[in-house]
Amino acid sequence: MDLDKYDIVVIGSGPAGFATAVRAVQLGAKVAIIEKSFIGGTCLNCGCLPTKFLWQALKLKQRIQKSYEYGFKVNSEPIIFSDILAKKDRNIANLRKGMRTILSSYNVDIIEGVASFRDKNNLIVSNNEGNNILEIFANKIVIASGTSPSVMKGFAFEGNKIINSTDALNLKEIPKNMLVVGGGAIGIEMATIFSGFGCYVTLAENENCLLPNEDREVSEEVKRNLIKQGVDVLVSCFDALNNIDKYEKVLIVIGRMPNNDLKLERAGIKTIGKGFLETNEFCQTNVSNIYAVGDIAGKSLLAYTAQNEGAIAAENAVKMNSISIDNSVIPQVVFSMPQSSSVKVSNFLKCRDVIYGKFPFTANSRAFIEKERSGFVKCAVDKANKKPLAFWIVGAHSDELINFASQIIKSDINKISRESVFHPSFSESLFNAYEDAFDKCVDLAKKI
Amino acid sequence: MDLDKYDIVVIGSGPAGFATAVRAVQLGAKVAIIEKSFIGGTCLNCGCLPTKFLWQALKLKQRIQKSYEYGFKVNSEPIIFSDILAKKDRNIANLRKGMRTILSSYNVDIIEGVASFRDKNNLIVSNNEGNNILEIFANKIVIASGTSPSVMKGFAFEGNKIINSTDALNLKEIPKNMLVVGGGAIGIEMATIFSGFGCYVTLAENENCLLPNEDREVSEEVKRNLIKQGVDVLVSCFDALNNIDKYEKVLIVIGRMPNNDLKLERAGIKTIGKGFLETNEFCQTNVSNIYAVGDIAGKSLLAYTAQNEGAIAAENAVKMNSISIDNSVIPQVVFSMPQSSSVKVSNFLKCRDVIYGKFPFTANSRAFIEKERSGFVKCAVDKANKKPLAFWIVGAHSDELINFASQIIKSDINKISRESVFHPSFSESLFNAYEDAFDKCVDLAKKI
Repeated sequence: MDLDKYDIVVIGSGPAGFATAVRAVQLGAKVAIIEKSFIGGTCLNCGCLPTKFLWQALKLKQRIQKSYEYGFKVNSEPIIFSDILAKKDRNIANLRKGMRTILSSYNVDIIEGVASFRDKNNLIVSNNEGNNILEIFANKIVIASGTSPSVMKGFAFEGNKIINSTDALNLKEIPKNMLVVGGGAIGIEMATIFSGFGCYVTLAENENCLLPNEDREVSEEVKRNLIKQGVDVLVSCFDALNNIDKYEKVLIVIGRMPNNDLKLERAGIKTIGKGFLETNEFCQTNVSNIYAVGDIAGKSLLAYTAQNEGAIAAENAVKMNSISIDNSVIPQVVFSMPQSSSVKVSNFLKCRDVIYGKFPFTANSRAFIEKERSGFVKCAVDKANKKPLAFWIVGAHSDELINFASQIIKSDINKISRESVFHPSFSESLFNAYEDAFDKCVDLAKKI
Repeated sequence: MDLDKYDIVVIGSGPAGFATAVRAVQLGAKVAIIEKSFIGGTCLNCGCLPTKFLWQALKLKQRIQKSYEYGFKVNSEPIIFSDILAKKDRNIANLRKGMRTILSSYNVDIIEGVASFRDKNNLIVSNNEGNNILEIFANKIVIASGTSPSVMKGFAFEGNKIINSTDALNLKEIPKNMLVVGGGAIGIEMATIFSGFGCYVTLAENENCLLPNEDREVSEEVKRNLIKQGVDVLVSCFDALNNIDKYEKVLIVIGRMPNNDLKLERAGIKTIGKGFLETNEFCQTNVSNIYAVGDIAGKSLLAYTAQNEGAIAAENAVKMNSISIDNSVIPQVVFSMPQSSSVKVSNFLKCRDVIYGKFPFTANSRAFIEKERSGFVKCAVDKANKKPLAFWIVGAHSDELINFASQIIKSDINKISRESVFHPSFSESLFNAYEDAFDKCVDLAKKI
């Protein structure tokens, strides 16, 4: 068996691992990436992107149904879900090809197999049958092995009736009915998509509202839209799984657990909590030449923070830099219909003397023209210094608008400039909500 | 004749006049607004909004045509342009009603008629027949009378063959062919819309490129997209009007001229250039109790700067404040298909040691999934301090993304934070283009 030597070996090719590998080469390192499944990890293959494809298809279906609002006459044939799935699979395959092209252009060696530690510098790669096929020496190792859907005790995923989010994305047809267990971001997205394509969905959450960590007005708006779409929403529901006979499918989306089956103990790597890897602000584990980035580090389980951590780990590992991650301003998006997004200063819950402004999209002329009048922008402002502290946006384009909001929050400014926001745009509503906090919005009728 | 007395009288109810009136009441003033035509001015009635309605209809038409990319089978009946126009008119009427509701809620008196000065505190309102119907005393007057389409010498608008942008929006059907004279924002938007709905359009510009003040790569991309759509684009074209027999319609869009027919000399108000009103940074004319805001002040002829000026003029007029307008960061959007947008620091042309980054939307996974792969983001960065100096975005959603870009420019920062931009979003491409300026983009193949 050859012993290949690398400056950096990355375990996993999702957003975190991919960013690590490319950046490490940009900085001059010789790099390999070990991937046990598809290039792109959860985000590309069974997370962000396939769900966005289906969500986007649903969006278009709904827009076509409402195209009479522009004076169009359109006849749609019944939608064949397997046709959409085939297109989805082709799109994802193309995106995978794109990632492979980038890795090749940077001469990253892609090693297909299952990684485990021999010691803190040596990794064993085995095939799916468990046979060791390769051993690799790495000066530094970056673990980006990700997470998998959490299992609910007594309800193991068997891929037929009891399914996880990955299974759901590969169903060949829309089930007649489905119980979705878990009212967080993934549960809401799945309920929205499947219900939108004709499945009778029951969504069960054991907290007393959907998105329990979100602003209550947002959570209520999302719930209202799900109900309007035909979803049966059950909150404070502890017994959803007591009677699953009546459901064709039971989709359990109650969180994600770390893929830590890497024989970490052989390298002396410490885990915390549910088995996530302990890392410092430099993305370094307790073993100084080993870094952990993305989901496996358990910091925020988001693709964009993962990419950021990957690039930073590469800088620190290759250049001996000490760049810290900064998770103080992180936007969040839920793909309900319309989307629901939020961003806050990190110490928001400790802020005192907060005033609020709100602007409904019914009062935004662009939303009116674009027939996307649902939802609102809500803004929290520090009364004393007039700085915006948080934005919540439920509405079309909020997944793009929230980046504008993040930049406002990050800028630490005490006004939003009217002349810097294009008219007519949805983005204006951020300005309007901010102005409303001071009762100075000119695009709303006077409050009585 | 009664002599009504007001703290503030506003001439014109477009974005500038409307914002002035509402803000003035919010600050405690008794306010009237004089409007000689429809509430909402050019923006609502024959500018931003009706064009956006038609553009949005075209966008939906194109999305429906490409819906097979999601596996849909859709049959559209031929589009009847007059049906779209009817919907447009109803939408605009509804938005007008909304503006009227807001003005009423603030007890702004809406006076219908043509305003002219008697002296610096007294205005005469006459009806369309030229008879004086009212005289008003105002402590302070804010002129927001707007602009009208510029006339080309020898080609007066007669509303039949030689038409302006207002006429174009009220055509009852799509002409077989049309010459559009003027390759600026309005000409490009009109060419895009009419060509999109089946008119054979020739677009003539006498400079050597479209959008002559814009980045050349952007101008070329816009031109390429127009040609792809079937528009015949003529640049360096001085003789377009020599042979207009072959065109059913000739649309002249070569700029706008001030509506200054207000007997300004009776109040001693100075004009500059082509007849715009001279104002200082506080939106004040040379006559201290008279302000001018929006198009008539000739600063930027944009609805959002107009709203800003209106609100500032109200603060200064009512509260004796000295708030200055700040036009240092103003986004610009052209409704080509896809949209083209830009924003720069105000001294951009003087910047030295500028480096550039570029990111194509073909490499953005959300654009890939959303089937909006056309265009790019280009970013200019100060090499020495790493501050972003300008963004140009040609692509879907760029009219929203440009507000994020404006905020980045306004923030005067020396990095864009990966973790603060949601994935998957179009907005990420701003981050990617910025990183590319340093050859550090991880989402592009290595340059050879």
